[in-house]
Amino acid sequence: MTDIAFPSWPDVAPQLIEVAAGRRPADTVIRKGVWVNVHTRELLPDHDIAISAGRIAYVGPDAGYCTGPDTKVIEANGRYMMPGLCDAHMHIESGMLTPAEFARAVIPHGTTSMFTDPHEIANVLGLEGVRLMHDEALLQPVNIFTQMPSCAPSAPGLETTGYEISPEDVGVAMNWPGIIGLGEMMNFPGVANGDPKMLAEIAATQRAGKTVGGHYASPDLGPDFAAYVAGGPADDHEGTCEADAIARMRQGMRAMVRLGSAWYDVEAQITAITEKGLDPRNFILCTDDCHSGTLVNDGHMNRVVRHAIDCGCDPLVAIQMATINTATHFGLERELGSITPGRRADVILTSDLKSLPIEVVVARGQIVAEAGEIKVDCPHLDWPDSARGTVHLGHELSARDFEISAPEGANAVTANVIGVVENQAPTKALQAELPVVDGLVEGSGDVCQIALVERHRATGGVTNAFVSGFGYSGKMAMASTVAHDSHHMIVVGTDRAQMALAANRLAEVGGGITIFREGQELALVELPIAGLMSDSPATEVAAKAQEMVNAMEACGCTLNNAYMQHSLLALVVIPELRISDLGLVDVRSFKKIPVIEPLS
Amino acid sequence: MTDIAFPSWPDVAPQLIEVAAGRRPADTVIRKGVWVNVHTRELLPDHDIAISAGRIAYVGPDAGYCTGPDTKVIEANGRYMMPGLCDAHMHIESGMLTPAEFARAVIPHGTTSMFTDPHEIANVLGLEGVRLMHDEALLQPVNIFTQMPSCAPSAPGLETTGYEISPEDVGVAMNWPGIIGLGEMMNFPGVANGDPKMLAEIAATQRAGKTVGGHYASPDLGPDFAAYVAGGPADDHEGTCEADAIARMRQGMRAMVRLGSAWYDVEAQITAITEKGLDPRNFILCTDDCHSGTLVNDGHMNRVVRHAIDCGCDPLVAIQMATINTATHFGLERELGSITPGRRADVILTSDLKSLPIEVVVARGQIVAEAGEIKVDCPHLDWPDSARGTVHLGHELSARDFEISAPEGANAVTANVIGVVENQAPTKALQAELPVVDGLVEGSGDVCQIALVERHRATGGVTNAFVSGFGYSGKMAMASTVAHDSHHMIVVGTDRAQMALAANRLAEVGGGITIFREGQELALVELPIAGLMSDSPATEVAAKAQEMVNAMEACGCTLNNAYMQHSLLALVVIPELRISDLGLVDVRSFKKIPVIEPLS
Repeated sequence: MTDIAFPSWPDVAPQLIEVAAGRRPADTVIRKGVWVNVHTRELLPDHDIAISAGRIAYVGPDAGYCTGPDTKVIEANGRYMMPGLCDAHMHIESGMLTPAEFARAVIPHGTTSMFTDPHEIANVLGLEGVRLMHDEALLQPVNIFTQMPSCAPSAPGLETTGYEISPEDVGVAMNWPGIIGLGEMMNFPGVANGDPKMLAEIAATQRAGKTVGGHYASPDLGPDFAAYVAGGPADDHEGTCEADAIARMRQGMRAMVRLGSAWYDVEAQITAITEKGLDPRNFILCTDDCHSGTLVNDGHMNRVVRHAIDCGCDPLVAIQMATINTATHFGLERELGSITPGRRADVILTSDLKSLPIEVVVARGQIVAEAGEIKVDCPHLDWPDSARGTVHLGHELSARDFEISAPEGANAVTANVIGVVENQAPTKALQAELPVVDGLVEGSGDVCQIALVERHRATGGVTNAFVSGFGYSGKMAMASTVAHDSHHMIVVGTDRAQMALAANRLAEVGGGITIFREGQELALVELPIAGLMSDSPATEVAAKAQEMVNAMEACGCTLNNAYMQHSLLALVVIPELRISDLGLVDVRSFKKIPVIEPLS
Repeated sequence: MTDIAFPSWPDVAPQLIEVAAGRRPADTVIRKGVWVNVHTRELLPDHDIAISAGRIAYVGPDAGYCTGPDTKVIEANGRYMMPGLCDAHMHIESGMLTPAEFARAVIPHGTTSMFTDPHEIANVLGLEGVRLMHDEALLQPVNIFTQMPSCAPSAPGLETTGYEISPEDVGVAMNWPGIIGLGEMMNFPGVANGDPKMLAEIAATQRAGKTVGGHYASPDLGPDFAAYVAGGPADDHEGTCEADAIARMRQGMRAMVRLGSAWYDVEAQITAITEKGLDPRNFILCTDDCHSGTLVNDGHMNRVVRHAIDCGCDPLVAIQMATINTATHFGLERELGSITPGRRADVILTSDLKSLPIEVVVARGQIVAEAGEIKVDCPHLDWPDSARGTVHLGHELSARDFEISAPEGANAVTANVIGVVENQAPTKALQAELPVVDGLVEGSGDVCQIALVERHRATGGVTNAFVSGFGYSGKMAMASTVAHDSHHMIVVGTDRAQMALAANRLAEVGGGITIFREGQELALVELPIAGLMSDSPATEVAAKAQEMVNAMEACGCTLNNAYMQHSLLALVVIPELRISDLGLVDVRSFKKIPVIEPLS
């Protein structure tokens, strides 16, 4: 794995040697700190770090002999010098930010390496989208590695994505400079059943000497799990209890454990280390998904490490879980993850290892953040039109596109209704008696309409159905082009005219989230890149997202994380009932079912 | 790193999945043992291992569901099931055995993976010799990886080797299937001084994504050490005290720690773990050099692990140091080093983790040894004539070739004499007054003659000098083509006619070690492969080596390890005085000095 934008260790070894030998002054020296040594798990006071060409040349008790008149000196003043933090598995798109803006948001929190799976954009733009994310990632002043997405579509046959990822695509991507491995292999039943396509993707990754990411989202640790492990995934972040973490580590996988905006998996699993005393080297921290609000208000990997410590983990062990353990997992142990010669000079200065204030962040030898403020540019890619104009509706929608006809002569019908459950990803498959007015089925009470609007191929297709649980009232509609995993457009509303307004509005702005009431737009989050991401700063996106939450509340919705619930209603891999461009899908049986039950 | 002779994980993943899922019976099941889990550092009783295609398909509480009528069942009967042992750095040639015979000797001791640096043959046969070792290694039923030798000659300008290794050679070798990295970078002053040739070898290895072996043989942990570390070596096995091990681990190298036939470095260094409490993941055990007698009488890596435990190391930690730590270091953690799905099925059954009796050894799924007996064939390469006929003297030697003329008219001279010191590799630079008879300088007392006989290019060159310390008496001579590192022929004797007999005898048999007294050969160890190795079994070689020791004693030599002392007298990198094909070398000043001091 070489980064085209940053010289390799052998490229600069002659220079590093000269600095370490005292024949050439360092570019930068960090003086008199406590060396947080993640190899030996020690704290070593009164150490200096000498940096040259963005890499560490020397760490020892006195770098005076490598310091020249032009050497920049950073005084650690007895603070801890710890390696920059690594996020072992994450989706940048979850922040609704481009890689550049995501980096800008997380660098001040001390994250200097990220292992990102651009799975969402892969569904919208295929391999081209992955390449764009990869390319912007490589422009950044920190290390953003790309995991090639493995599963687009997530549910073949039950939805139509913008593009599909093939084993050939995986083979191609393995040659890109920033690709570190295969993104989470979500099709775990496929692996356990020997699906040749999934195994070909894994094989292409293994043959390239790269890391296969896992995703085994089932509590069953029997033969299905064993078969999945035998298939080759090297890690898994879907564990939720101690037994999950233990099972994965025993089987030679790394347990990746999440604290995301909506994932709280650390506390239950870290007891494998803190109470059961297992070797911690195979326990790795990650976020998986963080909203921009979390990044702005709470932090990123510093939040995760701090939480692990709060859960009783020794601070040095917790730091290993977000530095060297991660680096070792991805075969990058001699490239990053520790403060030792040859590695990228990614260093955090902090005055307390428990509360972990991120005071100075150095990445590749330069100060990139100080006291929470970013100090460098995070360059934007010149995103092409193909990535900016991704909402293709075929024609302007009208209220008629959202009509649900009743069977001839019916006055009322039994409808299958997607039941949203607060704070849970799974939905309920409900049924409701709904009235018929002028031959059309109408929502009633808490049941309103939901539509999946095809937006990738301009088919003009609209799939209509019913949903309950949002609590909306009045004439309103909300629409989003963040619509996992195929990312068409999901529109939920109490009024068909408002639904058409919302959908057309997103087509106009190139994607995002909008909410209308009585013909007025109450809030808008513009996500012009693939309809998934904004290239505005995280603070702005977080503020707009908060306005969206407020507007939803004004329309009667008091669900926690309501817009996330909205965005998950097309996720046809999680039970019980979902909507896709192909219809209403019962995810218990993986079959389409009718919206209106036939009259008996 | 793929082994041409053994299918990769992705090659057989479909089969492993089927076994783990219960859809296909395993080839072999090991039943009801205690799973020594080196990932979690746990002992897990009552586990089964299912094996298919030589790899592990399943490890769990009951492999009954993967067991069919044709499945071979091995009853563990409550014994420990531990991973096969790894030797992280070693020279096969030190056993005076070919890779096949070395493997045959160590497999019953539980060694199933070796990381071998064929540095000795590289001096004799260059890249071709390395390739032959590599090729025979890949024929074996266990895993023998080859480290490309980095430093031939060891001392450029002070000796002439048969061949020289260049950075281009290193680049070529990196593409061979069995090459795992670069062998110990012994030229540590070169690295610290930025020698372009040494850095080019390191760079070629790093760019191939492989591991650079280190060798920093100095107690100085100051700037020279720092500069060496900055140059890129990833491990070092030359540490001899606790501070050495700690310094290497802190700097992000792995401390490789030796128990060889003549290396006793574990006890002093393992306290870094057992007393200082450092994270043990970067501490690795190895042998470096083992004589055939050690292999026959004492063991191999089982001896090292047992010794580490005797030194107070927790048995599970000690086993990690010879299994998963090693595998991780070489990027093979998903290939070997633990008993988990997908890995090569290399398993030892033992009934005690402390005394470590090696009861059954399984490698790649087949029983390769049982109760100390080898159970498989270790195939020999068809070694070419170029490797078998490597003693090229140019002409038959006579006593006259060993004459040392005195300056005109001298009756006595002052000679510079190599002083052998028992149990120490360094020699002393001595001087002695020697008589002149018929114009020739003669040995006297314990001072006898030593000759370096050129054998690579048939130059007919003989370098004559004096040595003391062996205690030889009577008319005798001993000769050896094991003559580190350039491996010409070293002849030591009290009588020039006997010296000629011994030298000619080795030319006749193609190399080895011989000793003559009064015209009779007392003992002979034939080493027909490159003059370094025998393709006879270790028991035979060890027996012949013992006869050699007895014969040396009969000639008056009571030094411990005398024939090793003999073989090191041309090692022009270790002080104080050595002999090479270019003359007598003072290794304190790296300069040639005269054998006879000029008359003042």
